[in-house]
Amino acid sequence: MSKIVHITRRERFSAAHKLAKPEWSEEKNYETFGKCSNPNWHGHNYVLWVTVKGTPEPSTGFVVDLSALGDVIKDKVIQHVDHKNLNLDVEFTKHLMTSTENLAIAIWEQLEIPVKELGADLHCVKISETENNYVEYFG
Amino acid sequence: MSKIVHITRRERFSAAHKLAKPEWSEEKNYETFGKCSNPNWHGHNYVLWVTVKGTPEPSTGFVVDLSALGDVIKDKVIQHVDHKNLNLDVEFTKHLMTSTENLAIAIWEQLEIPVKELGADLHCVKISETENNYVEYFG
Amino acid sequence: MSKIVHITRRERFSAAHKLAKPEWSEEKNYETFGKCSNPNWHGHNYVLWVTVKGTPEPSTGFVVDLSALGDVIKDKVIQHVDHKNLNLDVEFTKHLMTSTENLAIAIWEQLEIPVKELGADLHCVKISETENNYVEYFG
Amino acid sequence: MSKIVHITRRERFSAAHKLAKPEWSEEKNYETFGKCSNPNWHGHNYVLWVTVKGTPEPSTGFVVDLSALGDVIKDKVIQHVDHKNLNLDVEFTKHLMTSTENLAIAIWEQLEIPVKELGADLHCVKISETENNYVEYFG
Amino acid sequence: MSKIVHITRRERFSAAHKLAKPEWSEEKNYETFGKCSNPNWHGHNYVLWVTVKGTPEPSTGFVVDLSALGDVIKDKVIQHVDHKNLNLDVEFTKHLMTSTENLAIAIWEQLEIPVKELGADLHCVKISETENNYVEYFG
Amino acid sequence: MSKIVHITRRERFSAAHKLAKPEWSEEKNYETFGKCSNPNWHGHNYVLWVTVKGTPEPSTGFVVDLSALGDVIKDKVIQHVDHKNLNLDVEFTKHLMTSTENLAIAIWEQLEIPVKELGADLHCVKISETENNYVEYFG
Repeated sequence: MSKIVHITRRERFSAAHKLAKPEWSEEKNYETFGKCSNPNWHGHNYVLWVTVKGTPEPSTGFVVDLSALGDVIKDKVIQHVDHKNLNLDVEFTKHLMTSTENLAIAIWEQLEIPVKELGADLHCVKISETENNYVEYFG
Repeated sequence: MSKIVHITRRERFSAAHKLAKPEWSEEKNYETFGKCSNPNWHGHNYVLWVTVKGTPEPSTGFVVDLSALGDVIKDKVIQHVDHKNLNLDVEFTKHLMTSTENLAIAIWEQLEIPVKELGADLHCVKISETENNYVEYFG
Repeated sequence: MSKIVHITRRERFSAAHKLAKPEWSEEKNYETFGKCSNPNWHGHNYVLWVTVKGTPEPSTGFVVDLSALGDVIKDKVIQHVDHKNLNLDVEFTKHLMTSTENLAIAIWEQLEIPVKELGADLHCVKISETENNYVEYFG
Repeated sequence: MSKIVHITRRERFSAAHKLAKPEWSEEKNYETFGKCSNPNWHGHNYVLWVTVKGTPEPSTGFVVDLSALGDVIKDKVIQHVDHKNLNLDVEFTKHLMTSTENLAIAIWEQLEIPVKELGADLHCVKISETENNYVEYFG
Repeated sequence: MSKIVHITRRERFSAAHKLAKPEWSEEKNYETFGKCSNPNWHGHNYVLWVTVKGTPEPSTGFVVDLSALGDVIKDKVIQHVDHKNLNLDVEFTKHLMTSTENLAIAIWEQLEIPVKELGADLHCVKISETENNYVEYFG
Repeated sequence: MSKIVHITRRERFSAAHKLAKPEWSEEKNYETFGKCSNPNWHGHNYVLWVTVKGTPEPSTGFVVDLSALGDVIKDKVIQHVDHKNLNLDVEFTKHLMTSTENLAIAIWEQLEIPVKELGADLHCVKISETENNYVEYFG
């Protein structure tokens, strides 16, 4: 019998970004993205929750070793984005409009295979940008 | 290819209410609803999370403009309930037993069409009444 | 040698109230107190922190038995205000403008002597009305 | 017409435990479980969220009486685990590797039938061990 | 008789910054400030608590009208720093090493006189940069 | 001119303990310490806030390098208590009744000199045992 359990690990990172299309004027960017288009950047303390699912391994009771999962998240995501500029410094986000929606999709793509290699399935990438909003991507 | 993302906005309101059936005696109401039936009302800081889903728009990276979503929630819900009495002052709740369950359903009905008009689908209305309980309604 | 330690216990209560002077018109009350003057009341989840200070008793390591302190707070404060209307139901607040400032002072007066009887000194009564504001009264 | 609503109650407990297989050496346990294998135990403030679902009862607006649900959770779970050692004191966990995954499954088994007897369906048992991780079990 | 009460209002802002001395090399800045020296900036969701003290006004029960205090904080601080770069965009911080310590002092200087004009005394400016650190400045 | 700023760093640890005097019977311990006297231990996620004060250094804007402060706290406190039994495993607490009051004093004694060596003054050690209580020790 296999009992599926979801397990979630929280990580945090602080980064700068802006929302602005380079080919648009500053005015048009402000009209579309408001204060998020500030040319000199702004930033956030992002909170990231990574949920994986699987069957607890009988000898350990673990779906996945949480510290191994933490290492994967740090290696594939956090070290690349923490104290960085998401529009300038990060290979997997710098070609994107760095909306929280697109960050969640990009982080999913970083994690899907490495989580599989840990023996679990990636279920959800959730990111909050402020205490008043968050996004979830389920692949 | 369309990638579905869920995005959630948090809003808050402070309101008075009570749980009591007018046709019942004070004793019967107390028996059923306990201290929530206090005739002179009590109140809460309600927290409301509204989750919508859709595909990020390629030019903005947004499922929905969060500030437009915030405006809809304020216009359709918050301005009607904040610093109000849910049993006396609010058109869409005053005919109800104002349990958190019924509030979630009533707020869903206020938001379903306006969210559609923003180009997204309402996915969940979540309300907490205290830090120890919350309800979720998925339509 | 006596080492002074401060110890704080958190309790919570949900209550209705309004800010309005009965001798003023509804308009003047609205002008002064804004939406807090709604005639049909509103309410909050108040959070109360009671800080006492003293020297840990050598045999227990306690400044004060926290569950005895909790009992005092429940007996003198929480049972009187929880799920009540602060302007109508509560002996020690109903004669007051129920601002958070005045609540803190009134609760201090309820607790000062009973805390002394537990062998400690009341140091601070802190109350938050919403996540964005709180008051502290030090006697 | 039946509208399904999910309602969640939060409870908390503080317990000691360790992760270690008695038939393994201390070294092998450390290799597998890290600092969680400390022979003299460690502990946590566990937070438990129990989500049930059902249709609000028309006369009360309740899926389930939250205080009855709270009593069930206290009776079947909290009183057995709070201020206890999960590996030594608790009938329904002491035969387990007390990973958070296994705790969630064991608590589900304690609650499934009693929740049914309250007239609702158990939907999810969620437990957090620290602010950085939680598990969810959906049966 | 005058009873002194402290009242605190929380506001939030999201901003970009870096810690780096322009006259130092990138290496020396990294050595001193670590990842906070990233040339392309990073950012935070700053939380600001402003505490003022005074005697509640008898007719209102208020030390200060909280919404007037909120307006002062928004006018003198938040509108200048929210979604801005603290090193490039903000008159009262751009000449500073933008450590949290210096931000607290700079914000105190923005608020001291306007709070006095509201009839209260500024008591403390507290800022958190992440959930793991905060500073307090008492003038 | 020297402006004193307080800066606080939060750290966390998970530990087992009990409150019981070895020379007392189990019954007398239960009478005095309630469920905290469980012979098989219980545990908590302790949260520790260490506040130091000083004048920001002009070239960095720092009262103290926060990561150096973090290293001191980890070296002198966290590594000794995290995932440990406070009554059995920890040199600086195992001779104590491990009340939160006594933990705060013991941790102060671990930190006072090392903080001085960083060029600041220890101002407060604050510990919470659960979300409903915390202690503060100011030396």
